[in-house]
Amino acid sequence: MVKFEGFDFIDGGVCAAKGFTASGVIAGIKAGNTTKRDLALIKCSVRCRTAAMFTKNKVKGAPILVCKEHLKDGYAQAVIVNSGNANTCNDNGIEIAEEMCSLAAESLELEKEDILVGSTGVIGQKLSIEPIRNVITELTGSLSEKGSPLACEAIMTTDTRKKEFAVEFELDGKKCHVGGISKGSGMINPNMATMLAFITTDVKINGELLQNALRKVCALTYNMVSVDGDTSTNDSLILMSSGLAENNEIICEDNRYDTFVNALYAVMMNLARETARDGEGATKLIECIVNGAPNEETAKIVAKSVISSSLVKAALFAADANWGRILCAIGYADAEFDINKTDVELASAKGKISVCKNGAGVDFSEEIAKEILSEEEIKIIVSLNSGDGNAIAWGCDLTFDYVKINAEYRT
Amino acid sequence: MVKFEGFDFIDGGVCAAKGFTASGVIAGIKAGNTTKRDLALIKCSVRCRTAAMFTKNKVKGAPILVCKEHLKDGYAQAVIVNSGNANTCNDNGIEIAEEMCSLAAESLELEKEDILVGSTGVIGQKLSIEPIRNVITELTGSLSEKGSPLACEAIMTTDTRKKEFAVEFELDGKKCHVGGISKGSGMINPNMATMLAFITTDVKINGELLQNALRKVCALTYNMVSVDGDTSTNDSLILMSSGLAENNEIICEDNRYDTFVNALYAVMMNLARETARDGEGATKLIECIVNGAPNEETAKIVAKSVISSSLVKAALFAADANWGRILCAIGYADAEFDINKTDVELASAKGKISVCKNGAGVDFSEEIAKEILSEEEIKIIVSLNSGDGNAIAWGCDLTFDYVKINAEYRT
Repeated sequence: MVKFEGFDFIDGGVCAAKGFTASGVIAGIKAGNTTKRDLALIKCSVRCRTAAMFTKNKVKGAPILVCKEHLKDGYAQAVIVNSGNANTCNDNGIEIAEEMCSLAAESLELEKEDILVGSTGVIGQKLSIEPIRNVITELTGSLSEKGSPLACEAIMTTDTRKKEFAVEFELDGKKCHVGGISKGSGMINPNMATMLAFITTDVKINGELLQNALRKVCALTYNMVSVDGDTSTNDSLILMSSGLAENNEIICEDNRYDTFVNALYAVMMNLARETARDGEGATKLIECIVNGAPNEETAKIVAKSVISSSLVKAALFAADANWGRILCAIGYADAEFDINKTDVELASAKGKISVCKNGAGVDFSEEIAKEILSEEEIKIIVSLNSGDGNAIAWGCDLTFDYVKINAEYRT
Repeated sequence: MVKFEGFDFIDGGVCAAKGFTASGVIAGIKAGNTTKRDLALIKCSVRCRTAAMFTKNKVKGAPILVCKEHLKDGYAQAVIVNSGNANTCNDNGIEIAEEMCSLAAESLELEKEDILVGSTGVIGQKLSIEPIRNVITELTGSLSEKGSPLACEAIMTTDTRKKEFAVEFELDGKKCHVGGISKGSGMINPNMATMLAFITTDVKINGELLQNALRKVCALTYNMVSVDGDTSTNDSLILMSSGLAENNEIICEDNRYDTFVNALYAVMMNLARETARDGEGATKLIECIVNGAPNEETAKIVAKSVISSSLVKAALFAADANWGRILCAIGYADAEFDINKTDVELASAKGKISVCKNGAGVDFSEEIAKEILSEEEIKIIVSLNSGDGNAIAWGCDLTFDYVKINAEYRT
């Protein structure tokens, strides 16, 4: 976890912010699944100003189309989410997604239009409403302030770790919170958002600034993660604000807005980072830090190019300091800069080593490099020495298990 | 192999065209390598008009910089190529590449400026000139019209198959030839050319048209191949024309030019296609045919998106008809079209099956799909039904062996 000054990380995940409860139950959505939670609910005691970002893939899951419709007024009060089936590319997808909202609305005594919906899993198979109808009372009846881990578990597919963070901070002398849960392990190359991420806050902030903050932080976090270069059809990032923290409403980009953005960054950056660490089959988290780019956009492009390279990823799986592949990936990044000024260092908890200076190799100890790269968190530090643009991107190594998981996923 | 009407495929590879000889010997460039040929030479009896394309990677191998210099006058007479070391990102790379040209020139009694040079292998390690000097007489002394397979073998690294084709056809009643050899197995996402490809012809054609033809055919062949999305630092595609076929010189884009372009396509398309089949660790060749795109550019982008998707590649390794991943990869391709008109079919020697119609799944037999996908050549046929733009791209499946090869390559 990466800590940030001024923010206390606390338990509670998506329920850390005032007003929110959550639950997760076993519905048996995927045939044969009777042991894994696969249906989640997040609910607020009041209607929430809600910001959202969805996949840029032309193929959009039915839940996304329904969310967009239900978010036309900018408010929502609950989200129902299933794993095991993406409810995408079906002829009855929208009908089923609406039905999920109706079931939740009825059981919670809310308006259907205040319910959002998410689905993740296999694309192109019909989702049956029956298993969901069968457990809807159990789902709403078990809502609890301690429910975040259960909801988090219920949205997982090939994920191996729960991704859940929350921070506490003060605005106008009032305790405020931002918390979230996230899933995503394969088909991860968010271009707007990761597969599914739900963030809650009790900070009172106007709707436009809420959306601006989400867009800004998403660009620096989820959009800087790649596991396999595949942008999902169901990427959804939803940020709900209950406004129950009793701070004076944030209505302009003042320093309180900045504090909120920083809190959002502290939560979303950690969620995004853990998404990379939990990439399908991954054994290592790879963090590429690019400094000294002509501008921020160039830094981002270079950082993403490095963490997306199959050859770099495979080399790091083997803890092999094959820096030529790193330089190659920097070289084919679609951006303008002078490659001959490029320095590359490799770092981890075991130390730091310089492997490339001014675009050419330097002598280094293969033994020390191996020791550094054998850690579970690797940093690739790229200095372009051509300006002050910086960026960080997160990825993971490419392993036998990535192939195994994806060659067997559907069968 | 894909055959083309009007062209006879013949033996001889890079020596099929009049005037060319080749050889390949064991120099021991990679420490411990004493059994694999690793130094190749292609020579013509006359100076050749020569067209070339090189990597767009900002990191360029030293041999590329030397080739560009030696090609300033548009002529060359021989190419010397080593495998086992890319001679890239070294502080003495240019010096060594020039020295390779000098050794060849001296032994062949040619001008150094008429020698081109190529290197492939590990990036960032110094290439020693000694092993090359030691065998230069053997290399030039063994030049032969039957030498193409030996040269082809000598440029291979992780390749498992020789990639060598030649065609015979007529212009002005004279027998003409185009032939080539190519290597490339990993770090393959050509953006200009593949790692190393050498094409020869005896067709008499002016220099500008020679370069135009190469650029045009490269865009439809090598630039439509991806093994792992990594654009190499050493991609080089060189086309030498001896002009010894005695046809009247081609000086404009008439139907004789078209015939030459088609012959070039017949050779380069097969070389490129075999490069995809021989992708590192690959067990299957994947051909994605896109029809009905709004324009050719869109068709190309969609076709490349499909064959580049790690998830599609892993599914095909398992012969799994996971068409949702194909539609997803079509959906995130960076181009404009109506996804809801998209049809997808899967085909092989075992038959053809429709899996997606108008952007949604159709019922199909998983059993038949599995049988079709168990073949070694798979076609993914995408119909966008939005115009008449077509394209084909070639890739391969993603296997355990890709990870194995690339996690172990350098160590």
